[in-house]
Amino acid sequence: MCVGLDVSPEHLPAELPRDINGAHTFIQNIIEATHQFAVAFKPNLAFYLQFGSEGLNLLSSIRQMVPSECLVIGDAKWGDIGNTSEVYARAGFDLLGFDAITLSPYPGTDAIMPFIGDPQKGVFVLCKTSNASAHEFQGKNAGPGLDPVFLQVAHRMEKLNTKDNCGLVVGATQHSGLATVRKAAPTTSTLIPGIGAQKGNLQDVVSSLSKSPNTGLLINSSRSIIYATGDGSYQQNSKHMAQELSENIAEKLYY
Amino acid sequence: MCVGLDVSPEHLPAELPRDINGAHTFIQNIIEATHQFAVAFKPNLAFYLQFGSEGLNLLSSIRQMVPSECLVIGDAKWGDIGNTSEVYARAGFDLLGFDAITLSPYPGTDAIMPFIGDPQKGVFVLCKTSNASAHEFQGKNAGPGLDPVFLQVAHRMEKLNTKDNCGLVVGATQHSGLATVRKAAPTTSTLIPGIGAQKGNLQDVVSSLSKSPNTGLLINSSRSIIYATGDGSYQQNSKHMAQELSENIAEKLYY
Repeated sequence: MCVGLDVSPEHLPAELPRDINGAHTFIQNIIEATHQFAVAFKPNLAFYLQFGSEGLNLLSSIRQMVPSECLVIGDAKWGDIGNTSEVYARAGFDLLGFDAITLSPYPGTDAIMPFIGDPQKGVFVLCKTSNASAHEFQGKNAGPGLDPVFLQVAHRMEKLNTKDNCGLVVGATQHSGLATVRKAAPTTSTLIPGIGAQKGNLQDVVSSLSKSPNTGLLINSSRSIIYATGDGSYQQNSKHMAQELSENIAEKLYY
Repeated sequence: MCVGLDVSPEHLPAELPRDINGAHTFIQNIIEATHQFAVAFKPNLAFYLQFGSEGLNLLSSIRQMVPSECLVIGDAKWGDIGNTSEVYARAGFDLLGFDAITLSPYPGTDAIMPFIGDPQKGVFVLCKTSNASAHEFQGKNAGPGLDPVFLQVAHRMEKLNTKDNCGLVVGATQHSGLATVRKAAPTTSTLIPGIGAQKGNLQDVVSSLSKSPNTGLLINSSRSIIYATGDGSYQQNSKHMAQELSENIAEKLYY
């Protein structure tokens, strides 16, 4: 399980100030409350940028807050041409301390290469996103005998995964495409966001995985964990929801 | 003409410190030296991120450095799902002060909508990029009778351009597709990066434009202007190159 750290001032618990200090305390407490159930944390850059330069400092301190056995995945969805991709890769891995970064496939392979040279660092490339418009350019444009774009991306990433550091992003709402993607890229990991607030259903995801290769799988939930409601403190509510989701995943996948 | 403000410590003039202070002085002087020949400036976020939080402060001060009659285009290539796109749009327009932002089309229309509600703010959406791998997912996947993805993006943006605030990015190296894109999206502006260091040829670009609709056109050059060499100071060299390119554009387009 991966916990999405998408922090917004307006959603902070009432006891915290709605500013960068509140966000810092919140992120630190959420990590402490949930890390025993998580193998990765995924901060989305948009939510840190909205705090300006102090948000960028918070983002770069997350690697220190997270236990070393957990990954930090920078959800950046970067996708730029060659020389700019090199600058992004250095910023993401060296300065912000990410272990992996999400990328957009639109510019093609040469935009991905600067991120996958080091086998200790990796990427998750957008394949089929969880939003309503996902089909527009990802899925509908193939002719007879041709793969839709999202499957072309899957095949390409499988070829690029020679260092075992490539993954694909497939939204939980796209469970019909999930098995197809995992068959097309059998050694490439899958990051599945959209469980919870985005209405992705865990049972549907797991059912569509049952016949797919047994490759790395990260199921991400953001808002439903970090803004979990309940009778306890926000830390307790998040911890409870993280435990519940991780147990649900284990139960549905293994039994 | 648009001047790309892609600042890297290793390319700063020898007289400037290779740090954020050097970058700040450099950007300010380049804007002063070139603005009379430019209608827009385009900072790419990667180059500011590499300076950490101070780079973000520099990025957000560019709007104040640039004369009000020139646009500031944030070259972010953002593309995320709905609620995150709203956060990005607020960060880009309100916090960083951009007049327009470059986006990736991969997630589809709902990722673009939060950026085009205000007719005073706009987008340039990646259509055909200037890099060698551009064809992989943008151009080759259509079957008989189907448009390639980059043309689907052009048609989509033409439909979304009801407030006259949408543009497309077509690399200068893609001049064969340029006329096709402008015919497919006759009221949508075109931002053409890649003249200069990326080997895009101005004459080829202009030739392929000659039969296309007379719509908004921005020709961008980054490295060949801001790191121009010559006998003068770096400001004089940049000014000279900006003047030369802007005159070349005017001459080739109008005579």
